[in-house]
Amino acid sequence: MENKNYKVQPKTLPGFMELLPDEQIKFNYMIDKIRSTYEKYGFLPLDTPIIESADVLLAKAGGETEKQIYRFNKGENDLVLRFDLTVPLAKYVSIHKNELTFPFRRYQIGKVYRGERPQKGRFREFYQCDIDVIGEGELDISYDAEMPSIIYKLFTELGFKDFTIHVNNRKILNGFFEELDLSEKITDILRIIDKIDKIGVESVKTELGKLDISNDKIDRIIDFIKISGTNEDKISKLSQLGIENELFNLGIEQIKDLIKYAILFGIPEKNLELDLSIARGLDYYTGTVYETFLNNYRQLGSICSGGRYEHLTESYCDNNFQGVGISIGITRLFDQLKELDLIEMGKKSVAKVLVVSMDENIDECIKVATELRNKGIPTEVFMQNKKIKNKFKYADKLKIPYVIVIGEEEIKNNTVTLKNMETGEQTTVSRDELTIDL
Amino acid sequence: MENKNYKVQPKTLPGFMELLPDEQIKFNYMIDKIRSTYEKYGFLPLDTPIIESADVLLAKAGGETEKQIYRFNKGENDLVLRFDLTVPLAKYVSIHKNELTFPFRRYQIGKVYRGERPQKGRFREFYQCDIDVIGEGELDISYDAEMPSIIYKLFTELGFKDFTIHVNNRKILNGFFEELDLSEKITDILRIIDKIDKIGVESVKTELGKLDISNDKIDRIIDFIKISGTNEDKISKLSQLGIENELFNLGIEQIKDLIKYAILFGIPEKNLELDLSIARGLDYYTGTVYETFLNNYRQLGSICSGGRYEHLTESYCDNNFQGVGISIGITRLFDQLKELDLIEMGKKSVAKVLVVSMDENIDECIKVATELRNKGIPTEVFMQNKKIKNKFKYADKLKIPYVIVIGEEEIKNNTVTLKNMETGEQTTVSRDELTIDL
Repeated sequence: MENKNYKVQPKTLPGFMELLPDEQIKFNYMIDKIRSTYEKYGFLPLDTPIIESADVLLAKAGGETEKQIYRFNKGENDLVLRFDLTVPLAKYVSIHKNELTFPFRRYQIGKVYRGERPQKGRFREFYQCDIDVIGEGELDISYDAEMPSIIYKLFTELGFKDFTIHVNNRKILNGFFEELDLSEKITDILRIIDKIDKIGVESVKTELGKLDISNDKIDRIIDFIKISGTNEDKISKLSQLGIENELFNLGIEQIKDLIKYAILFGIPEKNLELDLSIARGLDYYTGTVYETFLNNYRQLGSICSGGRYEHLTESYCDNNFQGVGISIGITRLFDQLKELDLIEMGKKSVAKVLVVSMDENIDECIKVATELRNKGIPTEVFMQNKKIKNKFKYADKLKIPYVIVIGEEEIKNNTVTLKNMETGEQTTVSRDELTIDL
Repeated sequence: MENKNYKVQPKTLPGFMELLPDEQIKFNYMIDKIRSTYEKYGFLPLDTPIIESADVLLAKAGGETEKQIYRFNKGENDLVLRFDLTVPLAKYVSIHKNELTFPFRRYQIGKVYRGERPQKGRFREFYQCDIDVIGEGELDISYDAEMPSIIYKLFTELGFKDFTIHVNNRKILNGFFEELDLSEKITDILRIIDKIDKIGVESVKTELGKLDISNDKIDRIIDFIKISGTNEDKISKLSQLGIENELFNLGIEQIKDLIKYAILFGIPEKNLELDLSIARGLDYYTGTVYETFLNNYRQLGSICSGGRYEHLTESYCDNNFQGVGISIGITRLFDQLKELDLIEMGKKSVAKVLVVSMDENIDECIKVATELRNKGIPTEVFMQNKKIKNKFKYADKLKIPYVIVIGEEEIKNNTVTLKNMETGEQTTVSRDELTIDL
């Protein structure tokens, strides 16, 4: 028996962001800025499916990641929802390697899925905004140097002023620990060092002690990651450590080149900091690593991260594809900025003008709206038969900056009344001269 | 035992569109045009989750749709992937009804999922591009009239010339069949009529006969849907049928108003056709219905459809939300246009210029690229150490329209060599005056 009055409680799942229109306008403004910046640097668009075959997408996954994955069957297919945009890129490059032009520069902005325990600031569905440059074989270090300039441009365009891009090179770290004969413990050591910002120096020492590392070596590690001064100072101090390790010295050469080129790419040196403590936990990275911090909001963690990697496609083919890339988790960032009341940038409304009638006659309103739209001005007509007060209220609620009012008088004189909703100023404008500044 | 050389065959699932970069540029161009047109009409952006709770999304679903749905469990949650953008809209309006401003005009462009049997031209993941205007209670017919003008603007902007928007009103159909005392069979009759374009008049007659409808009534039905002439002729012929039915006559009034306002909204009358044979199978629609056809490619079916509906949120709340909307299935349309070799519109490359060095010195190349980017020109630098020939090949493959070459000579003279890749023309330009027309 169907009961027509039975209602389902409408709800959106926890961990899934769903915005009201005025927030969505701001969110889209950020996405648009990211996209236009990526395109200004010539990155090509890519859009891969959200659903992939489990054997393909999980070829390399494991541990924590695998537990969070949305995996299910449809018919005979074992399917997963993508959990990042890097594995789909590896798949894409492997499939299309003969049709792509290298270095392959692509951006992808899309939703990814991780079934994390829902909690404040954690999302199960979120946008990642990635760029990567993929080389077939060797990829010049100058491509690594371009990334910080893109991050700089992007966050400047978004209205941020006080932020710093931290760079390091895993070769320096790896070489240093080889020198200390600690290569076997490097993954654990890097994981601990990575937390120095969160847990402090003493806790890092304690944790390193638990790895059965001598106090002498722990002190050398702390001295190393605490090397201070300008970027130039740090590089010179690193060179003076007297470490003969080849990897270490290659790392220093690369970071020197990176800083030199990054500045040619237009990033002010004050926004770029060699930070020997950052390692980006993952094994994945083999050279340059990046993290980006809002200096007054360090508690947000890195808002844009990435690095240089080799072996991108090793699960799929024997080709040697190397790459460098960065990623912004924009859903979480937007949520944090909203929380901090830091979102002021961007448009407030879609329509620039609302056309309303003094009475019930909407014919001239539609004509005026059509003329404005033909001039490229985003325009709306209020066509419900309501009191004029309600029509203004509509414009007010949607933050539409201008209202055009048309009544008998205006029609007779071939004019409109134009009201600036912010200043309250009201003017009579000839129909022939009517326009709205965008 | 892990075998590092074991490779997984990389593949993309059938029924999922994944484009090469030059196709993706064109696809995005279409999406961008759709979005900018929707915004020109003041529609607000909306982005809802792809995953929803099964009980919410399936409150109303049934039959064919339900079979195609991607449904799975994660933990204790019974989840589905959205199969359209209308049910999420109904959910959203029900949840946020007290925070939204009505009439609520929203656009949503996003992926939806249907596990159809994969076959040529059918996709399991595809983009829908929807607009809807939702009224709280009565919504003026002028909102229905705005839709064809948006469709017209949109497809004109996309470069189409010969297309027609077919409109009808379900009230005319429903009233007509009430008059014929065939109301109980109306769903079946409309389903058959809807196919007239595909199967022809004779097959429609045969199928109607199977519903146990008298030949006399079948003839009246055929005469009715075949009413011809201009829109005005058709309306006048409808009025002269002498049908007293209230619904029928309300439908005629509405279609008259729709055509009148639609023309004020700027659609040329030749692009708008009253077509009594279209019904849009679904029970969902209660008034205006739309279909859009490319006149030279009728075989593609309707490329943009929609209509007026009541009871949007009846599964979730008692409020009376009425709406009118249209939808474009852009993934399928893009695929069909590609197949027909009809995609010529749009940009060919992202970068407008590639900066390359005559030799290994890329410093000045990076500086010039930075200057161009600061002027807003999408620019790329080729930084791999390759022969100059290979650098040009890269620009050629990516269809980048200009290449800037910098060598010792250029650096000495503070100039660059600018090559137009289309004409082959090469000029020497002073660094200070360098710009690229966008």
